[in-house]
Amino acid sequence: MRTFDRTTSDSSPVGIVDVVRWEQFGLDTTLPFHAMWYTVPPASSSPRDQHPEFELSLVLTGDAEVEAGGRNTAVSQGGAFLLDSGEAHVVHNRSQETPLTIFSAYWHPLPGTEPTAGDVQ
Amino acid sequence: MRTFDRTTSDSSPVGIVDVVRWEQFGLDTTLPFHAMWYTVPPASSSPRDQHPEFELSLVLTGDAEVEAGGRNTAVSQGGAFLLDSGEAHVVHNRSQETPLTIFSAYWHPLPGTEPTAGDVQ
Repeated sequence: MRTFDRTTSDSSPVGIVDVVRWEQFGLDTTLPFHAMWYTVPPASSSPRDQHPEFELSLVLTGDAEVEAGGRNTAVSQGGAFLLDSGEAHVVHNRSQETPLTIFSAYWHPLPGTEPTAGDVQ
Repeated sequence: MRTFDRTTSDSSPVGIVDVVRWEQFGLDTTLPFHAMWYTVPPASSSPRDQHPEFELSLVLTGDAEVEAGGRNTAVSQGGAFLLDSGEAHVVHNRSQETPLTIFSAYWHPLPGTEPTAGDVQ
């Protein structure tokens, strides 16, 4: 068994967001997805992002407000959200005190599956 | 975007553990893994489990003590642990008050990779 601790891992900033990429753990032949933790500081928002990978996100600390598909959706601590391939998204942290930390797994659409409505080719 | 809420999803008991399987969300052609949430009540332990899939677990609520590989390892809220293919494991919740909730993704070893030391064939 291996354990992974965000607080002791290498991180890099993406705008105001702190990102811990799982590539550093050498699991590329083990995991069927890419992964990262990211933290949005209080009263901040992630940069707008859009990519061909699906992205499954788990809210570990704080509460998220996710802007995607033309609306904002609250996802509280312990909840999950799945972004479609190509779906533009911004993640807001509306708290004035609590950082928002999310674990995301992301992967390209599986072979043989249809592109989703949100796909950008 | 889709959101997923453990508290409003179908669950089933596995021994003392409450399991919410993600098969109910109809994502089998989208996700490159299987997934579940499970909750170990206070002062309880999961049944011993062992399976050929790798299993990546994220501690969403509470703190875990994971028995695997001949030792017990603490994984606190927000942390992650990866069980090898075939690695026997028990997850203990040592808290007297707080339920332990974990998100797990699990998948068979990727084609072309070597079995790990813990493999049971």
